[in-house]
Amino acid sequence: MDNDQIEKIVTEMAENGRRAARKLAAVPTAVKNAILLDTAQLLMDEREFIRHENEKDLAIGREKGLSPAMLDRLELSDKVIASMVQGLHEIAALSDPVGEVDDMKRRPSGITVGRMRVPLGVVGMIYESRPNVTIDAAALCLKAGNGVLLRGGSEAIFSNLALAKLLQKVLASHLVPEEAVQVIPVTDRYGVNVMLAQEDFIDVIIPRGGEGLIRFVAETSRIPVLKHYKGVCHLYIDDSADIQMGIRIAMNGKTQRPGVCNALEGLLVHRSIAEQFLPAAAKQLMAAGVELLGCKGSCAIVPDMTPAMDSDWGTEFLDLKMIVRVVNDMDEAMHYIEQYGSQHTEVIVTGSYDNSRRFLREVDASAVMINASSRFNDGGQFGLGAEIGISTTKLHAYGPMGLEELTTRKFIVFGEGEVRE
Amino acid sequence: MDNDQIEKIVTEMAENGRRAARKLAAVPTAVKNAILLDTAQLLMDEREFIRHENEKDLAIGREKGLSPAMLDRLELSDKVIASMVQGLHEIAALSDPVGEVDDMKRRPSGITVGRMRVPLGVVGMIYESRPNVTIDAAALCLKAGNGVLLRGGSEAIFSNLALAKLLQKVLASHLVPEEAVQVIPVTDRYGVNVMLAQEDFIDVIIPRGGEGLIRFVAETSRIPVLKHYKGVCHLYIDDSADIQMGIRIAMNGKTQRPGVCNALEGLLVHRSIAEQFLPAAAKQLMAAGVELLGCKGSCAIVPDMTPAMDSDWGTEFLDLKMIVRVVNDMDEAMHYIEQYGSQHTEVIVTGSYDNSRRFLREVDASAVMINASSRFNDGGQFGLGAEIGISTTKLHAYGPMGLEELTTRKFIVFGEGEVRE
Repeated sequence: MDNDQIEKIVTEMAENGRRAARKLAAVPTAVKNAILLDTAQLLMDEREFIRHENEKDLAIGREKGLSPAMLDRLELSDKVIASMVQGLHEIAALSDPVGEVDDMKRRPSGITVGRMRVPLGVVGMIYESRPNVTIDAAALCLKAGNGVLLRGGSEAIFSNLALAKLLQKVLASHLVPEEAVQVIPVTDRYGVNVMLAQEDFIDVIIPRGGEGLIRFVAETSRIPVLKHYKGVCHLYIDDSADIQMGIRIAMNGKTQRPGVCNALEGLLVHRSIAEQFLPAAAKQLMAAGVELLGCKGSCAIVPDMTPAMDSDWGTEFLDLKMIVRVVNDMDEAMHYIEQYGSQHTEVIVTGSYDNSRRFLREVDASAVMINASSRFNDGGQFGLGAEIGISTTKLHAYGPMGLEELTTRKFIVFGEGEVRE
Repeated sequence: MDNDQIEKIVTEMAENGRRAARKLAAVPTAVKNAILLDTAQLLMDEREFIRHENEKDLAIGREKGLSPAMLDRLELSDKVIASMVQGLHEIAALSDPVGEVDDMKRRPSGITVGRMRVPLGVVGMIYESRPNVTIDAAALCLKAGNGVLLRGGSEAIFSNLALAKLLQKVLASHLVPEEAVQVIPVTDRYGVNVMLAQEDFIDVIIPRGGEGLIRFVAETSRIPVLKHYKGVCHLYIDDSADIQMGIRIAMNGKTQRPGVCNALEGLLVHRSIAEQFLPAAAKQLMAAGVELLGCKGSCAIVPDMTPAMDSDWGTEFLDLKMIVRVVNDMDEAMHYIEQYGSQHTEVIVTGSYDNSRRFLREVDASAVMINASSRFNDGGQFGLGAEIGISTTKLHAYGPMGLEELTTRKFIVFGEGEVRE
């Protein structure tokens, strides 16, 4: 397919998405919920069709020599289908943010002013691999009244198109334009460029994937981007820390699920507690298979550590590896976090009231925690319900993005003929 | 100055701004307020210096043949200085949003989660003409804990630099880095390009000015942009409208201050009320000097109207001119608004409960009003205090932007050693 054709296809889809989203914005909650629940049912009924289309992607993947881990992420097993179905039920059960009105107040002029939650419009999702994101993201966008234009990875294209087809069938049965959910059928990179230039039809771009994808999107897009960037998360053990608590939180943050963005990548330890804390912590972490990359001071205390190289500071390992660094005080820890953190999740373990207050206030990250595991930075754990990702952009949404973050607020004014003096 | 030099200067300023903003974020409210009040005092004390620097701009402007209106906008008269001083007092009196915590709740895991308001970081303002924006914008950004990098118009450069110098003097006297407020001394267009590429140091760009400037910024920036775009605002007179109320709101919206973004540019009238409404409304509007550009149906009712040309629909006149159009029903009015409005302010005058509800819900604009003048779309009128502008971007802020919109919220977690299962 040549670039002109791609441009035509993607532009038309964006324009149709805008038109569909305008209709969707006025669809009642009950209809949106029925769409979600009917989709859940259809996913179960059409499992054979889904597996069949998914098998095409898997066959191509095997031919291309994708790693077993990649193929695993690609597979729409019964378990993955069940999790999509559960997700749809959960999103149907969440309360609809659209139309919520708050901050209503009477002004001296006589008018009453408030703010009403409204959909953002059209969300552009750009993601890699896992095809279940197609349903999860589309369901959240729909519930928030947004149209969604999905651009998944080429290795999952048959699966993504199959899932979108089922959703569109349900939309049509409820007389909602099926262009409210669309998967771009073109997998050339150029299609992404065209998508990122549709500022008249797409309101926000949410990229989910590797660092390279996110950088490319942020640098190319003419549409606002809510970045879901890497998580280089740290745990700082203050001099007044409870040592057992520190070890428990380090273990949970590093070993419970090392491949996710809220896993720990670094351990910073106050110098005056390092000789007590590090040997015990290192023993447990190493027993769990964690490779510790230590600064000189840490290696002096625990000689089993691997000496860290300069390139290790600030690296997102997503693996059973973490850097360890002894710091002179909390200021040095906060300075290190500022330099090497990714504004995702930062944790302090401390017994000091003053230090807990300062850390909370001064550390710049989407979630700042005292005496709790970094693994809690998650929409479900924070009580937002399902999430579309964790934003490390400060504008609009910072941290887990749920339904509310997929809407905006407009001002509404009730008057009785008031004019301005 | 060559491009390399410009690049060096602007990049260094952005980097210094980031560093200063980090310090500013932790400055207590009392110090920020003292800075604002001391600046107010210094503006009064240094009126001679301000007038002297402003005179340089005015002299160049006169030489270049700027219009009297342009020169008027450029002048830092005693009245304008007094209004800056008053603005500083008002902003000092507003409560500080930084550090506010809300939505605190206990989660089933045991952790307590809430959201804390924090500064955005560094705000980049790009604006034209009026030098008082330098003080107004800097004061709001400072109060919200943000650093600000200001790029004003070349015709006001001496005035802008003079005002920034005074503010920096006060910052230094309170031991706050003076780079918290900086005016870019380079007026080449290339300086704007360099500024818009500083995504590592600037968090948000706020452009204020003409359509051309805003388009250029939106298309060039790699930093999120909160557009303050044109206001093509409409008043729709429903068939059940109170005719006198409709005329009063039309008059106020068009004639009270025709050159501002929340002034009316269009009047849409339901066909079944047009013969009653239009002659009376046209008489008053024309008596106030308003030129009415009518559709065929309107001109048939009021032959004194100028027949509208196709290019008139959707035009921001900013003048005593407005289009008039007869529509068959509210749906046609809402469709016209969707096509020609600028998502700024849209008003209905109606006596119908159902239509008021539908208009409120379905019209997509930063402010939607029932039976009130479009001129109320303003931070002061809405109770936000001072505003930095009116955003027509849906992401982050939609409508008047006050102190709160210059901040974001991070998640904070209080634990007692909880880890994730």
